[in-house]
Amino acid sequence: MSLNLQTHTEHFTNPLYLDSGRILEPYDITYETYGELNEDKSNVVVICHALTGSHHCAGTYEDENKAGWWDGLIGPAKAIDTDKFFVICTNVLGSCFGSTGPMSNRHPYHEEYRYKFPVVTIKDMVKAQRILFDRLDIHRVHAIVGGSMGGMQALQFAVHYPNFSNKIISMAATHATQPWAIAFNKVAQEAILKDPDFKQGYYDADIIKEQGLSGMAVGRMAGHISFLSHESMNRKFGREYKRDDGLYELFGKFQVESYLEYNGYNFTKWFDPLTYLYITKAINIFDISRGFDSLQEAMKKVQSELHLISFRNDLLFRNFEMKEIHNVLDSIGNKNHTYVDIDSDYGHDAFLVELDKFEDYVKDILNG
Amino acid sequence: MSLNLQTHTEHFTNPLYLDSGRILEPYDITYETYGELNEDKSNVVVICHALTGSHHCAGTYEDENKAGWWDGLIGPAKAIDTDKFFVICTNVLGSCFGSTGPMSNRHPYHEEYRYKFPVVTIKDMVKAQRILFDRLDIHRVHAIVGGSMGGMQALQFAVHYPNFSNKIISMAATHATQPWAIAFNKVAQEAILKDPDFKQGYYDADIIKEQGLSGMAVGRMAGHISFLSHESMNRKFGREYKRDDGLYELFGKFQVESYLEYNGYNFTKWFDPLTYLYITKAINIFDISRGFDSLQEAMKKVQSELHLISFRNDLLFRNFEMKEIHNVLDSIGNKNHTYVDIDSDYGHDAFLVELDKFEDYVKDILNG
Repeated sequence: MSLNLQTHTEHFTNPLYLDSGRILEPYDITYETYGELNEDKSNVVVICHALTGSHHCAGTYEDENKAGWWDGLIGPAKAIDTDKFFVICTNVLGSCFGSTGPMSNRHPYHEEYRYKFPVVTIKDMVKAQRILFDRLDIHRVHAIVGGSMGGMQALQFAVHYPNFSNKIISMAATHATQPWAIAFNKVAQEAILKDPDFKQGYYDADIIKEQGLSGMAVGRMAGHISFLSHESMNRKFGREYKRDDGLYELFGKFQVESYLEYNGYNFTKWFDPLTYLYITKAINIFDISRGFDSLQEAMKKVQSELHLISFRNDLLFRNFEMKEIHNVLDSIGNKNHTYVDIDSDYGHDAFLVELDKFEDYVKDILNG
Repeated sequence: MSLNLQTHTEHFTNPLYLDSGRILEPYDITYETYGELNEDKSNVVVICHALTGSHHCAGTYEDENKAGWWDGLIGPAKAIDTDKFFVICTNVLGSCFGSTGPMSNRHPYHEEYRYKFPVVTIKDMVKAQRILFDRLDIHRVHAIVGGSMGGMQALQFAVHYPNFSNKIISMAATHATQPWAIAFNKVAQEAILKDPDFKQGYYDADIIKEQGLSGMAVGRMAGHISFLSHESMNRKFGREYKRDDGLYELFGKFQVESYLEYNGYNFTKWFDPLTYLYITKAINIFDISRGFDSLQEAMKKVQSELHLISFRNDLLFRNFEMKEIHNVLDSIGNKNHTYVDIDSDYGHDAFLVELDKFEDYVKDILNG
């Protein structure tokens, strides 16, 4: 069967009450669906995206070459089988791919929010998705799957909407963002803020399309380090030197330097810098225990079947951070969860690139 | 006894032939000594400094509060006992604390070198030290000790001046800089280069003293991540939030963010950005095997007693990089070396902060 890719945007006029106490209204949520909703609406699988991801997680748009960010995992006859499941992925609140974010129009002022945009949390992102699903008349889903910030959303669904999903898979995430990850985000935030073209958030939107902000490129380079590992870098780049560059030229480049440059500068052309500030803020302040006395108390809320996946060499969100959730679930007698630590040396990126290491596992969970 | 701290600068008019094929002339080397040279000149211990270090490794200048960077290790009755040893530490060639570097005067043009400064290597730095010691009529030393880039220099002494030192201690270094470390340096280099105040190397020297370059601050923040570890950050900062900052304020700060800001911006006031480019370049291209067919062939040159120290949780130069040197020495039947991996969770910084974990070991080596 075909993927049946559809992209939609829903507009909401009711106020969205945020964790911060602030209100967002009106707001839009853009989302993408694949496959077909069955009659009793029992085949919905929700996909949650990461920091710079979007609702476009599978298939390829007509005018583009690049497939969605989890295309290897989602599609007809793939692990998340769109012949069987109706897959929905929303662009998170605060992002820049259609859902309301800092560069959206601030009603009724006919100007962008920019710094006037409220800080949103992972919980807010999940709440907005829940409201979207209500609008779509979907009140319970088969599964929720996400990695990295998507894995945080999956955990947030588990704790705050315990009756919403049968199964939840959270991978390459954490129960609370630790200082190592916050530090990497800090480098990126500071690089953006100090870029003179950023102009305290009042940058010219055209500059993004044309050349991007070099500050964000620098920040993204730091981000890429955190997504990789010593082993993956050694294998991928080693000490290979760029052809034609002299070793003793100050600006001669190792392959790893070219990789970071390419990815850093390319990124600035398709991602919005204010959005980067807001989404990294949401990641930094993520703590699934907030509002509870402890992680134990938070985990007592979980009713869904919860599957935790970490990657051994993930240096951004360490495997022991995921394992701690597992330990806590064990300690409160939760019999309805699993934890696997996948042997990978790809670092954090493993959840995007080493699909063969976990696709069967995901498939079994969804079909089991 | 007193530390007997003395600071000197020697001027050299003979050309220095560099690895790159270029020539540096004239040049200065600034160095510091502690203790007293004994009659037969058999008590010299050479200390080699790291990226942003200097010749000032022990004692406190009259007008300052901060002691030298290895003050805990070097001094009367300390592990490197200045009552017994005559300790010399030189500011490396290419640095900015007195030895000739990119902001030195380019003879005879009465202008700074800036980008006209040649790329120097770790081998060049060591060669310049060797020439200084000749000038001081010191032709053989008791020991050479260094960590990080200082450990690279120590290795370079071992391979290229096999008869110069009885004992050599190299810690927290590598045999060849791996892409993970190069990547961190890349972030810093790029942040400096893209800072509009950097002006392609023609920045106003006064700006450094007054406010520093924010680009270098950002780059240094990335550097600080690489010096720490998940564990040391967790212990030091956890998820502590700065007092008075609101969690939902976009610019509210975690303690780890304040730490990076403070250290990043403070750094820009005392370190020169062009020097940062040149020294990180020297680190990036460091490969002790260069000019040899293999690491084995390089290590066959070693005659000194060679002691290798790694730190278990060093994420900049991984312990297995040091262990590889040990394995290679074993494989060629070298009986005159030791290797210890020190249990520490301080990351790379351990060689500067966890002195109690290795000071006795260093002391025993020097006295044994």
